Amino acid sequence: MTEKLLIIGGVAGGTSAASRARRINPDLEITIFEKGEFVSYGACDEPYFLAGEIDSWERLLVRKPQQFKEKQNIDIRLNCEVTSINPGEKCITVLSRESGVSEVHKYDRLIIATGAKPRPCELPGAQAANLFALKFLEQARNIDEYIRAHKPHRAITVGAGFISMEMAEAFTKRGIKNTVLHRSSKPGGNTEPEIAEWLVDELQKQGVEYVPHCRPLSFELDEKGLIRAVITDKGKFECDMVLWATGVVPEVELAAAAGIKLGPTGAIATDERMETSVPGIFAAGDCCEVTHLISGRKIFTPLGDIANKQGWAAGENAAGGDARYNGAVGSMHFRCFDMEIGMTGLTEAQAREFGYDVLYGSIDHASRAHAQPKRKPVRIKLVADRNTRRLLGAQIAGREGAALRINTLAVALQAGMTIEEISGLDLAYAPPFSPVMDPILLAARVLSKDSQS
Amino acid sequence: MTEKLLIIGGVAGGTSAASRARRINPDLEITIFEKGEFVSYGACDEPYFLAGEIDSWERLLVRKPQQFKEKQNIDIRLNCEVTSINPGEKCITVLSRESGVSEVHKYDRLIIATGAKPRPCELPGAQAANLFALKFLEQARNIDEYIRAHKPHRAITVGAGFISMEMAEAFTKRGIKNTVLHRSSKPGGNTEPEIAEWLVDELQKQGVEYVPHCRPLSFELDEKGLIRAVITDKGKFECDMVLWATGVVPEVELAAAAGIKLGPTGAIATDERMETSVPGIFAAGDCCEVTHLISGRKIFTPLGDIANKQGWAAGENAAGGDARYNGAVGSMHFRCFDMEIGMTGLTEAQAREFGYDVLYGSIDHASRAHAQPKRKPVRIKLVADRNTRRLLGAQIAGREGAALRINTLAVALQAGMTIEEISGLDLAYAPPFSPVMDPILLAARVLSKDSQS
Repeated sequence: MTEKLLIIGGVAGGTSAASRARRINPDLEITIFEKGEFVSYGACDEPYFLAGEIDSWERLLVRKPQQFKEKQNIDIRLNCEVTSINPGEKCITVLSRESGVSEVHKYDRLIIATGAKPRPCELPGAQAANLFALKFLEQARNIDEYIRAHKPHRAITVGAGFISMEMAEAFTKRGIKNTVLHRSSKPGGNTEPEIAEWLVDELQKQGVEYVPHCRPLSFELDEKGLIRAVITDKGKFECDMVLWATGVVPEVELAAAAGIKLGPTGAIATDERMETSVPGIFAAGDCCEVTHLISGRKIFTPLGDIANKQGWAAGENAAGGDARYNGAVGSMHFRCFDMEIGMTGLTEAQAREFGYDVLYGSIDHASRAHAQPKRKPVRIKLVADRNTRRLLGAQIAGREGAALRINTLAVALQAGMTIEEISGLDLAYAPPFSPVMDPILLAARVLSKDSQS
Repeated sequence: MTEKLLIIGGVAGGTSAASRARRINPDLEITIFEKGEFVSYGACDEPYFLAGEIDSWERLLVRKPQQFKEKQNIDIRLNCEVTSINPGEKCITVLSRESGVSEVHKYDRLIIATGAKPRPCELPGAQAANLFALKFLEQARNIDEYIRAHKPHRAITVGAGFISMEMAEAFTKRGIKNTVLHRSSKPGGNTEPEIAEWLVDELQKQGVEYVPHCRPLSFELDEKGLIRAVITDKGKFECDMVLWATGVVPEVELAAAAGIKLGPTGAIATDERMETSVPGIFAAGDCCEVTHLISGRKIFTPLGDIANKQGWAAGENAAGGDARYNGAVGSMHFRCFDMEIGMTGLTEAQAREFGYDVLYGSIDHASRAHAQPKRKPVRIKLVADRNTRRLLGAQIAGREGAALRINTLAVALQAGMTIEEISGLDLAYAPPFSPVMDPILLAARVLSKDSQS
């Protein structure tokens, strides 16, 4: 009898798992249940769609259900919400949102790829029609439609992570004045102070108001029930719409109810084969936690590329293969207007928290050689372990190339290189791409010398 | 008594050595003798000056003699040609090109940074005023002046290395129809066939004529003694000027005459401290050979960034410190029109030559995520050792990011990573900078899987 693989969730982890499983086992019966209307879309592209850089939301659809069926014989059931998992009976209950009917489906292997959802806003007035979150394609379309229909002048974003920074650019490009309210000091997620400082300058230069250490308390609604101001501990901020961007939380209710173990981060715990505490049930994507390869700790780091890799491993293993996903070092980058920021590994503060004797330093250099008129500034901060000399983390900011340069340091970090080994690396040089002394080599040299004196 | 450090040559290696020596020893008497009119200039920027991208040749001057004197107390003697080194007496003879007078200068330490010079053209007619080479700033200025004064319509470049490719762009941007004649098949130096193929397409698309397997035999001169055609084994090519770009040779006559040992490449042999066979005499830059860290062989690879690193080590050691320069892996990149090409390590052919059981493969992917309208193609070729699985070499071509991406692979190569380790790397992802599966990870995955079947 044909073995059945069921997958819950069809965005990044789920579709990647399905494709890999099909590669490994051509005979498997593979079905994806997706509670939303879309599968396999570029969620990370949503801010660029909202900025107008991507001209229609349909372009975000990487593959359509029909393509999965025709090319890979993968069945996709849209608008189908899985309401329970029964590991004892090896079956799941699926509610069709269209018919309202529930069905039970048996499985041999199951992959949970339920993703994450925006952290909900719990302030009074949160049901207002002009309060938005941004994670799902439906949400991106809602924001776009609202902007088209209501032509808002002022948007307030609560939260200052990657999505907030990308949306600062998007709002501005759509002609909407944007204010970012952040409960902490630094924008851009886990940015180092040396990097965050520059990002705050850029926001201000681009006309975005950035308000740190600000906590929203309530919303002021107009007669139609729309938010017209956000009341905070730093005063009242008037607006025509609000983007609630305070991060995401993993979708784990289904897994938890089935007795699948959650990890210390609250996300689903898996081994390196992406198998959960219940044999035969795998998990992948934003609903899972990840091992940080430098600190050894479990982290919750919902990112598209990680979901993709985890899906690959979960799919291979669920189909009878043997693949591993061992973890991440926190490599990420984003763009905010003309600025690129990249990071990998631990920040100085995190490294201290993990007990390292920290060696750190930052340098300002340039993206191109001395004579090149398009030369732009680049800033690099390196964090190392004073005892072993090993690189623990790095961040780069700049106007060109910073995002790609971080990968060079991400590899050095994962290879366990010391600051001295990094300073001696043979990197490519040509005037349009680097100064004669590459900024990465300069940063390592300066840090190496500093620590000798 | 103050110790004296003399340096022969003041472009990349020489000035880098002087600056580093001054840092290490504030009391040293440091003098640079430069036979030309300029020191410390961006020779690699010359094609961009000739393209009009850099608006004046003065911008290529990084630091002027006066700045060296005022800021670092380094003496620079321009138009001073060192005609002999006497290691027994620890002195050099210097001919002033201005006064015609020779002087003898004593040294405690000597650094030879005589660089390289264009391989001379030995065909009859090579003395013609419209035959040019491009290495020194004076030569770049000559070409610029000739173009301004004579408005040539057609230029022939003999040779197809980096300079030739950069000048193909420069000539085209100056409105000059360019033909590149190459004795071998592939343009762009040590390019892999998969990469070279794309580069040839790009040249043709941009209106540059590329003639492989073509050997120039003689020049046809007009009544003024100017070249009006290059006669080759593939016929006659008419032109208004010729760029002879068949590579450079190390300037070693002075060293050789002083009994300093040359290596197998014909360039000056040094140890990792950049000391030559004569104790107290160091060398740095294009006149030196380099250890290839993958093959272990000596190579001649005259590049600005290497000169800079060697100068640093030579300067530090000559001033009493202890620094090492252990070698290179052949990391380099260049731009030709809208195309970027990067390379590191061994090519497939070189790896075979060195006796490896070679595993290789190339993939075509993209520079950005699926929905991004500015997404451009990227091609990556990886070469690995089938037995150890270690990466031996990589090349990347593309329209954006290829040049910077090569450094990610250069580090993996230098860290001794296997294809499987590379395929599992945590690299940063965001839609404007990479597809969700980074092209580097995809290339490694595909190669890893191929080799299993």
